[in-house]
Amino acid sequence: MLPKGFKVGGMHVGISNKKASKLDLSLFISECPASVAGVFTRNIVKAAPIIVSIKRLQHIKKCYGIVANSGCANACTGIRGIKTAEYICAVVENSLKLKSETILCASTGIIGKQITLNKKIFEKNISDIVNNGLGRSAKNEENAVFGIMTTDTFIKKISKSIVIDNRKVVIWGCVKGSGMIHPDLIGFHATMLSFILTDLNINNTTLQTILNESIDSSFNNISIDGDTSTNDSIIVLANGKSNVTLSSQIDIKNFIDAFNEVTIELAKLIVKDGEGATKFVELEVKNTKTKNDAKKIASTVATSPLFKTALFGSDLNWGRIIAAIGRSGVNFNINKIDIYVADLQILKNGKVVKFSNNTAKTLLLKKEIKFIIDFKEGSASIKYYTCDFSYNYVKINSEYN
Amino acid sequence: MLPKGFKVGGMHVGISNKKASKLDLSLFISECPASVAGVFTRNIVKAAPIIVSIKRLQHIKKCYGIVANSGCANACTGIRGIKTAEYICAVVENSLKLKSETILCASTGIIGKQITLNKKIFEKNISDIVNNGLGRSAKNEENAVFGIMTTDTFIKKISKSIVIDNRKVVIWGCVKGSGMIHPDLIGFHATMLSFILTDLNINNTTLQTILNESIDSSFNNISIDGDTSTNDSIIVLANGKSNVTLSSQIDIKNFIDAFNEVTIELAKLIVKDGEGATKFVELEVKNTKTKNDAKKIASTVATSPLFKTALFGSDLNWGRIIAAIGRSGVNFNINKIDIYVADLQILKNGKVVKFSNNTAKTLLLKKEIKFIIDFKEGSASIKYYTCDFSYNYVKINSEYN
Repeated sequence: MLPKGFKVGGMHVGISNKKASKLDLSLFISECPASVAGVFTRNIVKAAPIIVSIKRLQHIKKCYGIVANSGCANACTGIRGIKTAEYICAVVENSLKLKSETILCASTGIIGKQITLNKKIFEKNISDIVNNGLGRSAKNEENAVFGIMTTDTFIKKISKSIVIDNRKVVIWGCVKGSGMIHPDLIGFHATMLSFILTDLNINNTTLQTILNESIDSSFNNISIDGDTSTNDSIIVLANGKSNVTLSSQIDIKNFIDAFNEVTIELAKLIVKDGEGATKFVELEVKNTKTKNDAKKIASTVATSPLFKTALFGSDLNWGRIIAAIGRSGVNFNINKIDIYVADLQILKNGKVVKFSNNTAKTLLLKKEIKFIIDFKEGSASIKYYTCDFSYNYVKINSEYN
Repeated sequence: MLPKGFKVGGMHVGISNKKASKLDLSLFISECPASVAGVFTRNIVKAAPIIVSIKRLQHIKKCYGIVANSGCANACTGIRGIKTAEYICAVVENSLKLKSETILCASTGIIGKQITLNKKIFEKNISDIVNNGLGRSAKNEENAVFGIMTTDTFIKKISKSIVIDNRKVVIWGCVKGSGMIHPDLIGFHATMLSFILTDLNINNTTLQTILNESIDSSFNNISIDGDTSTNDSIIVLANGKSNVTLSSQIDIKNFIDAFNEVTIELAKLIVKDGEGATKFVELEVKNTKTKNDAKKIASTVATSPLFKTALFGSDLNWGRIIAAIGRSGVNFNINKIDIYVADLQILKNGKVVKFSNNTAKTLLLKKEIKFIIDFKEGSASIKYYTCDFSYNYVKINSEYN
């Protein structure tokens, strides 16, 4: 269910080369100005829509929504790409009778190609979606998510409501992304796209702070293939239509908890739809000296092709885990490390313990697997999500033509 | 051809579980004390033989040789593993009637398993190889390299001779390694094993300096899967038997050039035998501000699963190259970058140029492909070697049981 005051929709406008049944443009629109926060890829090479959105966010506090397309990343497209992104925003703004710079934009798809549009047809298409394609139905939600999907195999969205001050606040989020997934997002600087809508009444600064904190235990803690995209974007809109403001510490905590649940769930959905993924893995790295250490270790293990292929083979090759930890750049005492698969201990104080190979195999044959790596050196911990490397990953990424 | 005064050999001693026809132990022996230099993995987790060899190299300047085994990495094996490595050295030393700590050791194979030996049989085996298995024939050379091979599919060795002062100096090198290849070696601190033998007369300090310099344009510039091993080792022995010393700057330069040719060729051979590799790629990163920048960029592109799978599909998905460069952590001006496949320009000043897709496809279908990425920002350049990610890589690393 969408938060109050939002309408969404998706349609085929022909940006993607795919057949007309493939939706390739989506709109996420608030009926009133909404506080806005965003985080974008730290890749030095930023796509045109990201350059445009970041520039707008530097001087606006509120906006009316987001236009996002799939089929073309509009990255490495120079000045012409930026003009195209600005033109797409302008067409949406005009159709909605809004002032300039009130809409943000995002793109996903192939890098290095220009979006080519027949302006007359495009403007009519946008007018059609604005007048007939936007709404609050389950079908509208589906279409909006379809419009931003590329190699994704299922719709990834979540809606959560909490009660604050006896009134309901809704947080709705959607995400696309399945390959080139290793987000590295920060403040004003993440081809994973995620749009989160809420009817909470909150200013943009607080919203940005909540988003920044939240990504560090969600979108920044996932990896499918280690490749950080030029287009990763998360945009949050809060339009205030619930008439709820956060007036106590308890309220703030409750909203943040709910918001974090949404971002973590969306992040996990990306990994579950990872290109070729047959297994979903949670890596819990515990008791390191710093959170940064835990993250470096988790990220190195999660991106190790040898770990990921062993996982695909359902094989407990813990030596590959240890080798990856050892090259992570973090200093640690090997004689303190414990490793578990679920609750089955494999390594104690850096040495292998006796365990049942059958039990290990049973655990590793599951679709969802949890590893715990305990360093017993400090109190920092993180959970990181990743998937295996399968024949299908190679197929998807070598035979896409 | 081996340098003067060296004998080598390989045999099956039963360390590997493989059938008796698989040689699993090799000896590289000088008839007189040889100056020694070594570089080893920077992985925090170091295998027992590496711990033993590093310790010996801290107080010896010369040694008589190397004992190396395949089938078991002797890593994560605690004190017992160290004692085993020391025992193996001692048995070789005794058989050769040498003093203690005159032999270095190296291992490759599965991590986390102890080497189990029947001492009586092992000591007899070593005595057999020392008395009957060591020699200078092509067969001895082959056996010595076979003894350290794991998933390698061919013998990787090279011999080069140069004339200094009217006398011949021979440099002979061998290498094993096909997976878990992303060496990160430095000074006294590289499952790629490489042993280089020469009959030059040189002290160990100068030899170490030459080795340290050399790895930075060879072994440290290759990646198969991005995984740095716990066991990587390069050991160089120089026994002086040519009676040649380097007495002029020209002599030094000539020897260093020949030595670098050997290390670069050995490094390339590893990549050509990369697990599942169907293509050999040279990435030339040119004109960056610093060499470190060039290396970071090359390494990030070389380890990008999306770049490697596109390569397997013979597809020029240059957007994946750009995305990888952008996340490398190096700051650069996208509007200056030129990219070439061989001599076909793809990108000029960050923008795609018109080129023939057919020509590009023909180049990408070749077994050996060269990419040039020119940043036009400085004068630092490196050449980096890598391979593609194929179905076979996944097979080798998920179905090895």
